[in-house]
Amino acid sequence: MATTKLLSDAEVDRIPAVKAVFDDIRATRKSDFVNNFWRGLANDPAALKRIWEQLKAVMVTESAIDSLTKEMIYIAVSTANGCSYCIHSHTAAARAKGMTDPQHGELVSIIGLAGQTNHLVTAMQIPLDPQFEVK
Amino acid sequence: MATTKLLSDAEVDRIPAVKAVFDDIRATRKSDFVNNFWRGLANDPAALKRIWEQLKAVMVTESAIDSLTKEMIYIAVSTANGCSYCIHSHTAAARAKGMTDPQHGELVSIIGLAGQTNHLVTAMQIPLDPQFEVK
Amino acid sequence: MATTKLLSDAEVDRIPAVKAVFDDIRATRKSDFVNNFWRGLANDPAALKRIWEQLKAVMVTESAIDSLTKEMIYIAVSTANGCSYCIHSHTAAARAKGMTDPQHGELVSIIGLAGQTNHLVTAMQIPLDPQFEVK
Amino acid sequence: MATTKLLSDAEVDRIPAVKAVFDDIRATRKSDFVNNFWRGLANDPAALKRIWEQLKAVMVTESAIDSLTKEMIYIAVSTANGCSYCIHSHTAAARAKGMTDPQHGELVSIIGLAGQTNHLVTAMQIPLDPQFEVK
Amino acid sequence: MATTKLLSDAEVDRIPAVKAVFDDIRATRKSDFVNNFWRGLANDPAALKRIWEQLKAVMVTESAIDSLTKEMIYIAVSTANGCSYCIHSHTAAARAKGMTDPQHGELVSIIGLAGQTNHLVTAMQIPLDPQFEVK
Amino acid sequence: MATTKLLSDAEVDRIPAVKAVFDDIRATRKSDFVNNFWRGLANDPAALKRIWEQLKAVMVTESAIDSLTKEMIYIAVSTANGCSYCIHSHTAAARAKGMTDPQHGELVSIIGLAGQTNHLVTAMQIPLDPQFEVK
Repeated sequence: MATTKLLSDAEVDRIPAVKAVFDDIRATRKSDFVNNFWRGLANDPAALKRIWEQLKAVMVTESAIDSLTKEMIYIAVSTANGCSYCIHSHTAAARAKGMTDPQHGELVSIIGLAGQTNHLVTAMQIPLDPQFEVK
Repeated sequence: MATTKLLSDAEVDRIPAVKAVFDDIRATRKSDFVNNFWRGLANDPAALKRIWEQLKAVMVTESAIDSLTKEMIYIAVSTANGCSYCIHSHTAAARAKGMTDPQHGELVSIIGLAGQTNHLVTAMQIPLDPQFEVK
Repeated sequence: MATTKLLSDAEVDRIPAVKAVFDDIRATRKSDFVNNFWRGLANDPAALKRIWEQLKAVMVTESAIDSLTKEMIYIAVSTANGCSYCIHSHTAAARAKGMTDPQHGELVSIIGLAGQTNHLVTAMQIPLDPQFEVK
Repeated sequence: MATTKLLSDAEVDRIPAVKAVFDDIRATRKSDFVNNFWRGLANDPAALKRIWEQLKAVMVTESAIDSLTKEMIYIAVSTANGCSYCIHSHTAAARAKGMTDPQHGELVSIIGLAGQTNHLVTAMQIPLDPQFEVK
Repeated sequence: MATTKLLSDAEVDRIPAVKAVFDDIRATRKSDFVNNFWRGLANDPAALKRIWEQLKAVMVTESAIDSLTKEMIYIAVSTANGCSYCIHSHTAAARAKGMTDPQHGELVSIIGLAGQTNHLVTAMQIPLDPQFEVK
Repeated sequence: MATTKLLSDAEVDRIPAVKAVFDDIRATRKSDFVNNFWRGLANDPAALKRIWEQLKAVMVTESAIDSLTKEMIYIAVSTANGCSYCIHSHTAAARAKGMTDPQHGELVSIIGLAGQTNHLVTAMQIPLDPQFEVK
């Protein structure tokens, strides 16, 4: 179904630059499972490394936004962009990080409401209030 | 610039159903400022009431997601949908609720990264791993 | 502001293939005003002709959908796609074809509601009911 | 496939707040069939009620836009937003309300044409003609 | 799965206006295979003819952009619009026109990067530098 | 207008990590001009460095896709995503790399056509032909 090959573990093991990233994904996530996204990216080892290092820097490193909130923001963007795979994988990640059913329900409601007001604002072409401009 | 009229306070005062909602917006937000979005919606009093009550239920009521996180999720959806007005108004709201500069910087990075991986996944048409399906 | 030149009437008059389309736009619409969209497209006379003939076939010719409804559908798509220019020009066209303020208010509400349920469905990744499949 | 559970009738019957909405959906639509969208929303009874009441107000109540036109506008937004479920369910609803094959063909053509001119306008960044501004 | 019927060759053969377009698609592409997109459009013979003639003019005719580049641009738009069918069909077309695996890998990376910077720019609402305006 | 500060050269000079990236941008592009996008990103020096290094790797390094084609792909994605700033800046970049007026005209036509067929396919929910699947 993909437009590119998804590399199996055996294929990954034959390309040292790819294997190194897969090893780091497994060590960082403390899990043997490497999902299809990385197996598709593995066709381009330099891209694989770039994207993984970025994801590690933004999503894994301790920072000013807690890691469950990060996943909820990810789900929000992925929903607005209609990326089914991303919604599934980041909802699973959010649940693994402790998202409860009521939190998921609210997240869905906020995304829906934002979708609605985005459309209302755009249909009416509401001009920016000067109060919202950064001084 | 709008495709509809934006009602002034004088016009609002002449329509009781609209005035009631504006009064509630002011009381709820403890501020006299009512932004242009509501002034556009006010052309349709029933819609104005529906949207405001929904926004109050989802965004204002105490709940399982804290109110700064809600605003960050709103910004995320609004960015992916390209709603400039919404990005401005909800970034202002998030700052008013305590979003720091480093948090804003991270939020922007997460949104950017999600935008990137959404596009990568879609371009490669990555099939869903069975591990991500809800049991 | 455009990324291409917008041809003035004097420039249009010097290119017969462009002038012929502009004449037809004016005759069809019974108005001397030709809006900027066509002045941008005029840089590529073959594209100008293709797009205008298509628009005439789809939007101008009498057909199974009345012409105000067509404009409302156009506004709906343009809103979801965030095309500010298109929202403005087709809202003006819809008003010229008789769209009332209450109809505009409802159109905005429908677009907003669809935006919301689209986001809700996508966030929850609702599977298709077999009842909705075309037999 | 969904990221949330879809409630069965048996589960619905155990939650009075959900059952009340499902009863109203069935009574309003004069049909026993309740589609998956509502079964997903049912995880959050307050959200279920909010969305259903809104949908009833906007889509079901007699108003200034006839009910087939409403469905066509819904399909237009859902297409631009790429919501496959929504396109299917609202195309089925439009057919149930009398949309003919020629009307569907035209609807598809209008959506396609709007998609095209939206992209053309955006690529050229056409500036707004002053004639389109609301006075 | 489609919201419209997909015409079989037997059905196509009974509608001369449709058969003429299918014959031209086969002759132009030097292949007997006519993909589902055209079988769906065939429900509206005038639309079928309009879209095919446009596609032939833009994508098939020799021009200032080579034909592999055209397909890559098509994939880029289709990815950002989340059109799964279009991504598959134009990736197949690009490969048929000689796109190599490294070129596909790069194309995916460029699309991903553009997706990212689009989101970053939009989240920060970066104002246009005067240097980018067309003189 | 931005939702974040845009750093001036004087401010950049006071943050060594930012100055290093700005120096590299200037050296790589052989130009003193650093556009607003980087001045916004500069609020988060780590993000600035990540995005710039990625852009250099994908867009600047010699590779299997020539550098004008890369810019046209970037414009295509940015148009479908409605990023006005990105369309302007990458159209300027494409012209600087030799894009002619006829090439720009064709690029616009391809983007418009893809936008149209994306919408047509999605409205009709065309199922994938098995011939397009990667073996």
